[in-house]
Formats: sequence, C-alpha cells, structure tokens
Amino acid sequence: MASTPQSRIKVGIVGGTGYTGVELLRLLSQHPHVELTAITSRKEDGMPVAEMYPNLRGRVDLAFSSPDKAPLSGCDVVFFATPHGVAMAQARELLDAGVRVIDLAADFRLKDIPTFQKWYKIDHACPDVLEEAVYGLVELDRAGISRARVIGNPGCYPTTVLLGLAPVLEGGARIDTRHIIADCKSGVTGAGRKAEVHTLFSEASDNFKAYGVAGHRHHPEISEQLARLNGGPVGLVFVPHLVPMIRGMFSTLYARILPDAMDTDFQALFEARYANDPFVDVLPAGALPETRSVRASNTLRIAVQRPGNGDQLIVLVVQDNLVKGASGQAVQNMNLMFGLPETAGLDQVAILP
Amino acid sequence: MASTPQSRIKVGIVGGTGYTGVELLRLLSQHPHVELTAITSRKEDGMPVAEMYPNLRGRVDLAFSSPDKAPLSGCDVVFFATPHGVAMAQARELLDAGVRVIDLAADFRLKDIPTFQKWYKIDHACPDVLEEAVYGLVELDRAGISRARVIGNPGCYPTTVLLGLAPVLEGGARIDTRHIIADCKSGVTGAGRKAEVHTLFSEASDNFKAYGVAGHRHHPEISEQLARLNGGPVGLVFVPHLVPMIRGMFSTLYARILPDAMDTDFQALFEARYANDPFVDVLPAGALPETRSVRASNTLRIAVQRPGNGDQLIVLVVQDNLVKGASGQAVQNMNLMFGLPETAGLDQVAILP
Amino acid sequence: MASTPQSRIKVGIVGGTGYTGVELLRLLSQHPHVELTAITSRKEDGMPVAEMYPNLRGRVDLAFSSPDKAPLSGCDVVFFATPHGVAMAQARELLDAGVRVIDLAADFRLKDIPTFQKWYKIDHACPDVLEEAVYGLVELDRAGISRARVIGNPGCYPTTVLLGLAPVLEGGARIDTRHIIADCKSGVTGAGRKAEVHTLFSEASDNFKAYGVAGHRHHPEISEQLARLNGGPVGLVFVPHLVPMIRGMFSTLYARILPDAMDTDFQALFEARYANDPFVDVLPAGALPETRSVRASNTLRIAVQRPGNGDQLIVLVVQDNLVKGASGQAVQNMNLMFGLPETAGLDQVAILP
Amino acid sequence: MASTPQSRIKVGIVGGTGYTGVELLRLLSQHPHVELTAITSRKEDGMPVAEMYPNLRGRVDLAFSSPDKAPLSGCDVVFFATPHGVAMAQARELLDAGVRVIDLAADFRLKDIPTFQKWYKIDHACPDVLEEAVYGLVELDRAGISRARVIGNPGCYPTTVLLGLAPVLEGGARIDTRHIIADCKSGVTGAGRKAEVHTLFSEASDNFKAYGVAGHRHHPEISEQLARLNGGPVGLVFVPHLVPMIRGMFSTLYARILPDAMDTDFQALFEARYANDPFVDVLPAGALPETRSVRASNTLRIAVQRPGNGDQLIVLVVQDNLVKGASGQAVQNMNLMFGLPETAGLDQVAILP
Repeated sequence: MASTPQSRIKVGIVGGTGYTGVELLRLLSQHPHVELTAITSRKEDGMPVAEMYPNLRGRVDLAFSSPDKAPLSGCDVVFFATPHGVAMAQARELLDAGVRVIDLAADFRLKDIPTFQKWYKIDHACPDVLEEAVYGLVELDRAGISRARVIGNPGCYPTTVLLGLAPVLEGGARIDTRHIIADCKSGVTGAGRKAEVHTLFSEASDNFKAYGVAGHRHHPEISEQLARLNGGPVGLVFVPHLVPMIRGMFSTLYARILPDAMDTDFQALFEARYANDPFVDVLPAGALPETRSVRASNTLRIAVQRPGNGDQLIVLVVQDNLVKGASGQAVQNMNLMFGLPETAGLDQVAILP
Repeated sequence: MASTPQSRIKVGIVGGTGYTGVELLRLLSQHPHVELTAITSRKEDGMPVAEMYPNLRGRVDLAFSSPDKAPLSGCDVVFFATPHGVAMAQARELLDAGVRVIDLAADFRLKDIPTFQKWYKIDHACPDVLEEAVYGLVELDRAGISRARVIGNPGCYPTTVLLGLAPVLEGGARIDTRHIIADCKSGVTGAGRKAEVHTLFSEASDNFKAYGVAGHRHHPEISEQLARLNGGPVGLVFVPHLVPMIRGMFSTLYARILPDAMDTDFQALFEARYANDPFVDVLPAGALPETRSVRASNTLRIAVQRPGNGDQLIVLVVQDNLVKGASGQAVQNMNLMFGLPETAGLDQVAILP
Repeated sequence: MASTPQSRIKVGIVGGTGYTGVELLRLLSQHPHVELTAITSRKEDGMPVAEMYPNLRGRVDLAFSSPDKAPLSGCDVVFFATPHGVAMAQARELLDAGVRVIDLAADFRLKDIPTFQKWYKIDHACPDVLEEAVYGLVELDRAGISRARVIGNPGCYPTTVLLGLAPVLEGGARIDTRHIIADCKSGVTGAGRKAEVHTLFSEASDNFKAYGVAGHRHHPEISEQLARLNGGPVGLVFVPHLVPMIRGMFSTLYARILPDAMDTDFQALFEARYANDPFVDVLPAGALPETRSVRASNTLRIAVQRPGNGDQLIVLVVQDNLVKGASGQAVQNMNLMFGLPETAGLDQVAILP
Repeated sequence: MASTPQSRIKVGIVGGTGYTGVELLRLLSQHPHVELTAITSRKEDGMPVAEMYPNLRGRVDLAFSSPDKAPLSGCDVVFFATPHGVAMAQARELLDAGVRVIDLAADFRLKDIPTFQKWYKIDHACPDVLEEAVYGLVELDRAGISRARVIGNPGCYPTTVLLGLAPVLEGGARIDTRHIIADCKSGVTGAGRKAEVHTLFSEASDNFKAYGVAGHRHHPEISEQLARLNGGPVGLVFVPHLVPMIRGMFSTLYARILPDAMDTDFQALFEARYANDPFVDVLPAGALPETRSVRASNTLRIAVQRPGNGDQLIVLVVQDNLVKGASGQAVQNMNLMFGLPETAGLDQVAILP
C-alpha cells in the first residue's frame, strides 16, 4: 500500500548540515510514509540541500531555511541533528504545538540531571520534558517509545554496548557486573563534520589511536542504562578508539561469567533474546562480525565468543554509527511513535564491498 | 503496484562470487519485479550466499549451486558475472530455451571479432549470437536494448568515456576526433575479487599509479563505440590509473574544440542531451563532481569545463564502477528488455559520507 | 667526516607547525651538518615541538618560540614554512643581517609581480628581493642556486611538471608547446594542516575529485617556468585532483610530438638529461611509477611512454609532495647554497610498503 | 667513525620477497656496519631486488638468488624472513659454518616443543638448536641476546604485550595474573604479502574486524613469555583485530591491580623500568599514543592509564609492526650479537604525517 502525500508524516529537521542530518535526509527521502517539510540551518539559509550534499541531487528539493522561518510547528515530528543544548531549548514549544521531538544529541539521554550538567557543562533547560522523555533504544523499550512524545536518541557507543550486554543482564546478571570492559572502535564520522585538525585525512588516515580514556560523555550514558538493566550500579571501563574508516563501529565487550552461570548456553541466550528484533542479527556460533557487513544499513550484528569454554565472555558488536548508531535508529523510533512498520524506510541492504 | 511473486521476472546469475555478482544480488534482492531463482558457482556449490556476503544475511536465502544443477533454462534472464569467455559458451543454449542473456564480461561488447581475439586471446565461440547482441549502454541505444535478446554490458571505463563524449560527437563532431585524451581513475574493486598481490591493501593503499598505458582491453571497446558515434575512426589516448578507494571511477576527458564549434554552448548542449536520462546528471556550470556523490547508486554525473573559454574542452565524469559501471547498468538493461520502468530497483540514494 | 656542532649550519624555521614545518624538522634533525637553532610559532609559543609532533620525541628538544623572541638573525639560514606573504615581510631584515632565506611559500616564486598580485591578492612587499631571488628547482639551475641569498622553493605541482617536461623543451622544443596537458593528482597533505571540512577524513577518504579547474595558483608558476625553458609562452591545461592518500603526487603529462622530432629516442633523451641528478630517477622503458616508491624520500621518478610509437608523448612523474615537492627540495637548496654535498641529510630510502 | 667495507658484517637474507624482507633491506642498506651479501628467493632467482621493490632503486644492487647458489655460509649472520619451518631446516648447517641465525618466523620462539607442534602443525626439526636459541626481545634479555648464536625474533603482538606488562610482572606481580586482557589491533601488513582475498584493498579498507578469537599462534608465545616473567602461569584473553592501515600495531591491555599494589605509582614504575632502553618511550602521564608516531621507526611507545585511580590498569602500546615488531627488532638483535651500538642503523625519525 503506497501512502498518499496527504497521509504522509510531515517531518522537520533542525540542523541538517552535519552527518546525522544528511543521513536523515538520505533515509527519509526514501521513506514511503514521510514528507520532508523543513530543514533548518542558520548559516546556510536559502542554500538548496542538494548543493551541499550532491548525493541528494534530484532526490531532495528542499533548501535550508533559517530556524525562525521554518514551519516546524506544522510538522508531525521534528528531528534535532544539532549540537547538545539546542533541542532542550525548543522542545517545550514544539510539544505544546503537538509536535513530537526526537533529539539525536544528548539533551534527553541522561535522566540524572547532575550527571548531565557535569558532563555537558550546561544546565538542563527543561527538566520536566526530560522527565517524560524516553531513551530511544527500541530493542529495550518498544512499549515506552510507542507512547513517547520526546525521544532521547541513544549515542552510538551506548547502542552497541547496551545491546551487546542486555541479554546477560536482563532477568538477573550472569556476569560480574563490577568489572565490565568495553573496548570500542569508531569510524571517523563519529566525530561529526566539524573542521578540526585531528580528524583531517592527513591526521586520521593510516593511523590508530585511543582517545577519551580519562573520560568520555558516553560513559555515564552507558552506565545509567546498564544500571537500569542490572537493577543496580555496574563497574565499567570504557576505552574508545578511532579507526581510519568513514563509517562503522566495533565494540569488543569483555565480561567475567559468574560461577552460577557457567552452564549458560550464551549463543542460545542471545539468539532467543533478539529473535523478534528485525535490526539485531546474532551471528552463528563461531562467526565474527565486520563493520562493512552493516555499512549504510540499520542492522546491528552480534557475535558471542567464549574461548576455551572458560569464564570469560566476549561479545563483539558492529553497527553503522550513522545509521543504527544515529539517524537510522531515530527513524526506527519515529516508525514506532507513529504506528508504522518498524522497518519502514530502513530496509536497504548493506553496501559490501 | 506491487508485483506478485507469480508475475516476477525469474533471474539467474552465473558466477556470483565476485564483486559484480554480489552487487547484482544487492540490487536484485531489493528489486520489486524480480525473483532470484538461481546463482551458480562451481567452487562454492551448496554454500549459502549470505555466508560469503554477510551483508545479505536475512535478505537472500539462495545458496550457490553448481552450474549443471542450476535451473537456468527456466529463468527469464541470466546475468553472467563471470570471467571473459564463459557467457559465449552458454549463450546459444539459453537463447534457444527462450532465456535472455546479459553478459557483464566482454564476450558481447566488441563487434569486430579479430579485435576481440587479439585482446582477449581466445576465439569467439558464437559469432552469430555476437551478431545480434546489443551493446548495453542505455543512454545511447534505448530502442535496440528494448528489443535485444543478448546484451554486452559495457565496461566501466567505456561507460564514462562514451557518455562524456557522446554530446560532442553525435550529429557531427564538435571536437578534433584525432586527438582525444581520456585520463581515467578507478577504485580498486575495478580489479575484481581475485587474490592478487598488487591489489592487496598493503600495496594499493596510500598509493597512486597508472597501469595499462601500453594497452588496456577497454581501449578497443571505447574506440569501436566512439567510431560508431563519430561515423568514422577516432584517435584516442587512454591512461587508466588506480585510486586507493573501494568504489568509484573518475574520468577526465580532454578534447580540442573545432574552429567551427567555438560558439557552442557546451553546458546547454550536455544538459539538453541528457534531459530525459534518469541516471545521467549534468552538473551546473562551474560545479565539479566527486566520486562519493554517486557511491552505491546508478547515477553518473558529468561536469563540463572550458578554461578561459578557449579551445580546450574538459569533461569530468563520475560513476560507481560497480553500479552504473557494471551491475546497475545490467539491471537497467534488464528493465528495458522486460518493459519495466527504467529506474525500477535502482532508485537508492548515493551513500555520502 | 662528521661535522662538529661548532661547524654546523645554524638553521631557523619560521612557522613550524604545518606539514612542511614538521617535515623540515624530521629532515634537519637527521642532517649531519645542521644545528636546529630556532623554530617559531606565534600561537604555540613555549610548547615543545615534540609535544605537537610525537614522532620527534627524543629527537628534537626545541620548543616553539614567538617570532619576536626567536634568535633568527643569528642563523645562517631561515626557512619560511608559512602562509604566503610572511617571508616577504621579513626577508629584507634577515638578508641585511647576513641570513639566507628559503621560502617554501609563493613569495619568491613568480618573477612577474602583476601575476603574483593577481593570484595571491596581495601586493608584493619587496620587489628588489624578489629581483635577486632564485627559483629553487635544483635540477634546472644548480649554478644560480649555489650563489643565491634568497630562494623561492617551487610548488609541488610545478616541480613534477617542470622536471617532466624540461628534457623536451630545453635546447628547442620537441613538442607542440601550445597544447600541453598536465593531469595531476595529489595526496591530501598538499592542502596543509589547516582545519577545513573538505579535507576531513570523512570527506576525502574513499573519494576522488578534481578541483581548481577554473584556476589554481600553481598554474601561472608552471607557465612562467615553462616559458623560460621554452624561450617563449606555452599553452597549458592544468587539472589538479585530490587522491585519498597522505603523501604523494602523480602527474600525467600529455604532449604532441612535433613532426620534426618524431625520430627522437625520448627514453634516451630523458636518461641523458638526468644522468647526473641524484634525486631524479628515470625508470627503464616500459616501467610505470607509483607514488609509494618515493614515500618519505627526496627522489622523483619519471617514466616516458609513447603508445604505438605515435605522436603522443606521455610523461608520468611521481614524488613525495612533502619532500621533493617541498621540504626535501628546500634542504637540497640549502645544501647547494652552503657548499654541502647535494644529498646530505636526504639519503633516506623510501618507505614501502 | 665510518666502517670500511672490510670491517662490515656480512649479512644474508633468506626469503627476501615479503614485507619483513624488504624492510630488512631498507634498514640494512642504510646500516653503517653492514654489507648486504646475499638475498635468496627460489621463485625470483636472478631478479634485481630493486625491480620488485622500486624504493630500493639505486640503493640495493643485489639480485635475488636461488638458495642453493647463495653464499650464505660465508656470511656472519643470516636472517630468515621466511614462512615457519624454513629456518629450522637450515640452522644447524649455518651454525656449524660459524654463521649466526636470526629467524623472523616462529621456529625458535616457543621453548615448549609440544606447544610448537600443536600450533604450527609441524614437527620441530632441531630441538637442540631450539634449546640454545634465545628469545630476541632485547629489553627483556640483553645479556642472553649478546651471547646468542640463534635468535627467535619475537612476534609482533607479543612484543607489544610483553613490553606493556613486564613492569608490572617483574619482581612480583602487581596485577591479577589470572585475568589479563589484550585487545590488540594490527595494520594489514601484519598479514604479509601473500595474495589472499581477505586482505585485498577492497575487502580490508573502510572496514574493521576481529579475527583469530578462537585461537591465534601468538597466544601461546605471549603466554610462555608472560609465565617466564611471572614465575608461573598466567590467564590471558587475546583478541586481535585488523585495522585498515598499512603499518602499525596498537595494543590495549587491561589488568586488575592487586589490593597490595594499589599504592603503586605506575607511571613512575614504567618510566624507571625503561629509562635505559633507547627504543621504548614511556609517554608522560595523561598522554595517549598513536601508531603514526612510530611509523617506519623502531620505537615502541607506552602510555599508562588508571581511570579514576581505581583498580583497573590500562596500558596502551604502539609500534610499527614491521620495524620494532619484526625487522627493526631483528636488526637490534644483530647489533647486540655483534657488539655494535644498539641503535646502529635504527635511528630514523618516524614518518608523520
């Protein structure tokens, strides 16, 4: 059943010049139930979107418009693909106009306001909106998201770590939750489209490094959600690394299996947990994931390893950081919020090679 | 209008383990009017396609089958994603069974048999089939392709050079046809998926080189087609280069404008020529193309430059060598041959970044 | 013979934070006859060089110092690794103090002042110094450079085009000089270390594009020098492209052989021309160069091709844009200016793979 | 003091066509005390080395020679840059002729013969030679290496893990040795120069994956040496990953600090341990290493992190896998064995960018 323009969801995007913005445009311009209504950029007011992003030539006719001129209040939903702090300044007004909000930045991810303020160095502008906001990790809270008016779309690292560990935490931890290690690797688009020296081709290419070891903003986000899954605090070491590739995220998770859980069939546990999740693919026993197997798709793939059948569990997770780790997940949230099929507009096959 | 499985075109692929094969699978598995029926590989008989190409997990259920077991004669069309020489050995039998044939290798590209034998070092197995075969460059011969039973799908380099020069050759040459220069650059997938030292990551990465200067098989193919467009032989210098990128082809074409043609508005000429071609995008005056603007899409983009309004015309052409340069073009040919919309299954937006 | 610190040349570097700066530091810190005396950076005053460039840890003890504090007038030679316009503001004062000057930017490259002002949008601050300045392409003017007090170190593109064409221009042109084509390709370090969006890893990786087709600053520089070699103006089409690699430059030069010169043995001509140039390597007939064969070395390699023994000459030239195309050539100039062996400090073997 | 040809060490290389071979050639051709005498390759007999490796043009005049023709017994030392199993077949004869042997493969790394046979699937050909062989990790056994006739040059991964953990194991473990995690990442040259599909540019570029999780040959090597350092067995989880870069290795090591060792100043401990090792650089507190900081150099850099001053120690180690991880370390061993300065021929500054 094709949707008519009349029946389509009216979508606005605030701050569409970054990578999550152009990725939203790519996905939404191919979405069968969406009408792109407005896209804002203060700086690029008037510039056709397809001039900045030539892949959209002939596919997206919109021009960027200044936020004050954009008809956002007439939209059904507005995505914020902006720096932290923008969504929370506008959310209340949009909600009052009946517009739903999906923020791809961090304004509605952390429930604990002091933690938010410590890591993002700004006060939270609307604690009441935050109160009702739902953490948009579909596979963990389909019901909550379906009813939500405001979504805090998860960070890219948290998506991989949480989906990689949920099966061994839900319903009673099977692992030592005081000492979890997440050794994570991200492609360079994870750093956004801002001009900075350390992400220049000449700096990031043919190179590998760790960063943020002393503290990364996704750390408290992961910890808060892991604690929710665990029913209590967890100890997490989180080391992000930068990989010379455009898209892709790979997380290697290490956890010690509890003595009582040594008999668990972890492969079966993971397969059962995600049997009904169209975007989570648990690989067969022994298989290893690679990031390109999900390039430009919303699929996240997981492999479970237990060397020598010992007490060390290794979970390997891959996703495209711009799709399942950002814009694809945001569209998946939108689909749920509007009662559409969860996979609508998200069924592209990954690009390999 | 969704097509029912009953009404779908039954498609077979011979030799699906290479890059043009997996790209055909990616495109055809998302094609609304196609039913994938068989995919052959002598070596991988029995292996599920999705095991070799994990991007297809959950999307393609077929397994490779040995050619002798595959139900190719029951297909409507068979694609050959094989080395040169395979299609011509099987084409006659398939045609007799009413199956149409699209060869992605060179068996049906060159009309001149001595030239074929000189460059490919093999006799041609079926001159009569070659006689009726149509060169599958849609934008140059939509009518012929629509009626064809056998298609020689163009090489990747020829596609860019021919579409880049057709507007200045058709209807009387506007350029000096004795001295055309094609300085072409290809991503590494152009070399295929064969294990060879010179295309190893450690050899091809962070490196740039020319190759085949003394002679490349696409040279006679381009020359033959240019001569057809020109109504007589042309002089062509063709230098291919290898770029450290996965997909993408960039051709910089240099031609001297004839004195009589100095008043031509080349920008307008190109725009008019391709106004009705959904997969050819002539960029605005002054714009320059980049390969990523067509990554994983069937679009080919062209820019026309004339520095200082002098007598030197520069045409810059980009395409994805695996899509418009190979598998996408093959599907475009199939669409025409079966009366489907030319863009069916080919409307994905390019992946950027 | 090892040089004692007392006998070493005292070297200063102005603006050492960019890529030509760190490359000068790498080369000069290993140079047997050099003592690094000062390196300036207004912005990084006080920061140890090895903190910004960890490859220099334990090898360079200097810290950046503010230009006004740096003991430049006590140096024997000062390199300017600065943006255009800086060297010409300071050259006169340094010369008066007996310091020689090597500018890696464009202040002393173009002899024609109106051309300089047109392309660099600034007035020339010291036409008299420019008057005496020598264009520092060693292989073309060893005698002039030996006597020079001021060197305009050539641009990276010009180095390849000029050395690629000198043998067929010197002593009477053997090619049609009205229609020379230089299709050039550069690694991303050619754009410098400035934070800009188009050179981000996420923009420049897995991509290929042309740029500056409508006009590039190296164009007038090449033209002026070609005219000098030719004894009269030449017609040049110059199209630079950006390659996703860190270092390396590849120039494909196309020229029409004059009727009178059709009997020339071009391979022999090139070999003879560069027989005594330690940094120019003419490859054997039939060989093709690749950029990695000169990575991190001061060697430039040239191959000469003439397809079908026809009238089209193709010259292929590779260099490391940061070494022979910039800092290595600057050190080579210094060696000549101070009577040192031309290869002193420049004999590292290229890094392959 | 320059060495005369007469006084130079005569060096042979067996199997010089791979990456460790060409890297040995690069280093040894610039070594002041070495005379390259022979390089063997059964397959390339007669081919000039510089034809296969154009970076060596003008620097290495040798041609490959068939092993039976090469004057290996007249060498002072022979390096084996061969697959596993070659060195042990020839070592006895060379030793009897007074030639010292440095094997870059695994024949003399593992002291435990059953372990060797289990992982390499071949019998050990000379247990007596293995008995006297010394594990060539200079920083752990300078005395032993100085006296050795046969060296088992360490694997690339083991070098990083062992140097990263030695300071907390020597003299009594400060960490829980039952649960050490080594999350390691390697550039693609680590896989050698063999033509294989999974290391093609089109497969390995823009991609990240783990491999060998179920078992990697460097695992028993690391375990054996860790046990030696620890004075007893250790529990190690080792997960290698493949990074789309040419050279470089990054190991992230996780260990739990023992209660008794919580007061240790780990930064000071590491700095003191390596104060006299010219090729180990302990970064300042808070700094993070990147692989390019050691590209093409023999330096290994280490950073020590302890987030929140808790019980989790993180050690980050970088090296160039072809230099300190293979050929550079082999030359370092040679220097010790022949009483040369440890840094002779190994003082090149790393290439950055």
